[in-house]
Parts: sequence; structure tokens; C-alpha cells
Amino acid sequence: MSAPAAASLHPRLAADTHTLGALGSALLLLHREAALHWFILVPDTDCADLTDLPPAERYALLDDAAALGRFLKAEFAYPKVNVGALGNVVPQLHLHVIGRRPEDFCWPDPVWGRPSPGLSWSGEALQALIARLGPLGLRALS
Amino acid sequence: MSAPAAASLHPRLAADTHTLGALGSALLLLHREAALHWFILVPDTDCADLTDLPPAERYALLDDAAALGRFLKAEFAYPKVNVGALGNVVPQLHLHVIGRRPEDFCWPDPVWGRPSPGLSWSGEALQALIARLGPLGLRALS
Repeated sequence: MSAPAAASLHPRLAADTHTLGALGSALLLLHREAALHWFILVPDTDCADLTDLPPAERYALLDDAAALGRFLKAEFAYPKVNVGALGNVVPQLHLHVIGRRPEDFCWPDPVWGRPSPGLSWSGEALQALIARLGPLGLRALS
Repeated sequence: MSAPAAASLHPRLAADTHTLGALGSALLLLHREAALHWFILVPDTDCADLTDLPPAERYALLDDAAALGRFLKAEFAYPKVNVGALGNVVPQLHLHVIGRRPEDFCWPDPVWGRPSPGLSWSGEALQALIARLGPLGLRALS
């Protein structure tokens, strides 16, 4: 399973995120809301739901999510990581991996569909994040 | 990894669900809200987050979730399955596997933290569901 090209992203995913690169089996996106670290993994598949993925692809995607979860805790001291595969709005399979803190904007509710502060990532902050993700094997898109 | 005894369930999980039995590596619960099929898997672990689980335990839990997702689509014709590991309210690791339809009570929003119809499962409906889960390997708790 290879990461999908950015060009094949659903328009809503493309509009809501920054593309960070390819991580393991998936494309790695970052939600534009900068109030927290909100990653989205997009595997290259026609399956609609996480539970539809063949086992090897499911394991690979969850390995990537686990690496991101460890990264969020180790690098940014998030005490909690939320993981979700919903896709009720965007049909392209994608997996959210989100760092959460008791003081964040909608704790303890899920982040999806809630009003958020509307903070933005600067270009410098994105480049710094990409650099910190290097040891996880993040690859630039060709 | 064995399924935890029902006695070790967090009180909030115990209060919100019916215990259906043990499935694969986890305890299988059903949320009391009967407006949709809302399963919750509880693995026997001290890890707080899905992304903290060792790989073999993560794969086993996701295998169980995938089996439930296939079951929801095949047996009840749900077009969509939502999967989530949040745990912002209940710290005991648990994985939601929820059948979703465009006509359900909060589509396309996530179900967590939303007002729901408050429908109840009858004893007969629970027994029928447990019987239908038999081919997945659902085991009664000892």
C-alpha cells in the first residue's frame, strides 16, 4: 500500500488540511486548526471504512497511528490521544490522530463538528513540525 | 490478552452498556441507546490509549473491531461504520464500533456527547443479538 498522491485527496480534506508528506502506508495531513495537533492519515485504498481494510493494510495504518500517538506524547506532552475513523462527511477513508489536553477548546468532547478557535499554523511552525517528524520516517511527496 | 472480567469495568462504562460477552481479545459491550448498534470493545490492558497498545494487542483489538464492522454491514445493512478510541471521560481503554446511517439521530455528526432518543434494548432483542454474534466467536462470561 503506497500513500496516495495529494492530487487524489477529497476536496474537503484538501481544503481543511496541510499536507505534511507520506508516513508509512499513508498520506499524512495536519488539520488547519492549530489549537491542537490534529493529524489525519489517508491510506491509498478504495475501502470506505477502517473495518473494511484487509488485515495487513489495517495493521499498517494503525502502526502509523501508533507512531503518531507516541510522537504526540513524547514531543508535545499530550496526556491523551484520540483516534477516530468516521467518514460520515468525507467518504475517502481517513484516520484522525489528535493530541488532547483537559484545557483544550472542547475537552472532554470530541473535536469533530465543534466550534474551534480558528488558529493557523505558520509556515515556520509547519516546517518545524515536519522536521520533528523526520525520525518517524516522514517522506516528502514526489 | 484475555477479556477483562465485567467486575473490572469502569463504573461509567458499566452503567451505560449491556455486557454481551467476550469477543476475541476483549469484552464486548453494547451501549444502552438502542437507536443504533453501538458496540464497545474493552481489552484487558493498563494502557490508556489505543496508540499505546503493543502491536499484537493493537492488531487483535482491531481484528475484533473489523469483525464487528463486517457484522454491522452484513446483518443490519449499515452503510457506514464509525470507529473511535477517545477516553476523554472514561480513562479505561475502550474502542467504539458504531453502525451509522444517513437517517440516524445525529448523522453526520459523531454520536458521542450528542442527545440521543433514549431507546432501550429489550431482553429479547439482546438475546437475539447475542445469538447472531455467535458465529463471530462471542463467548459467554464465566
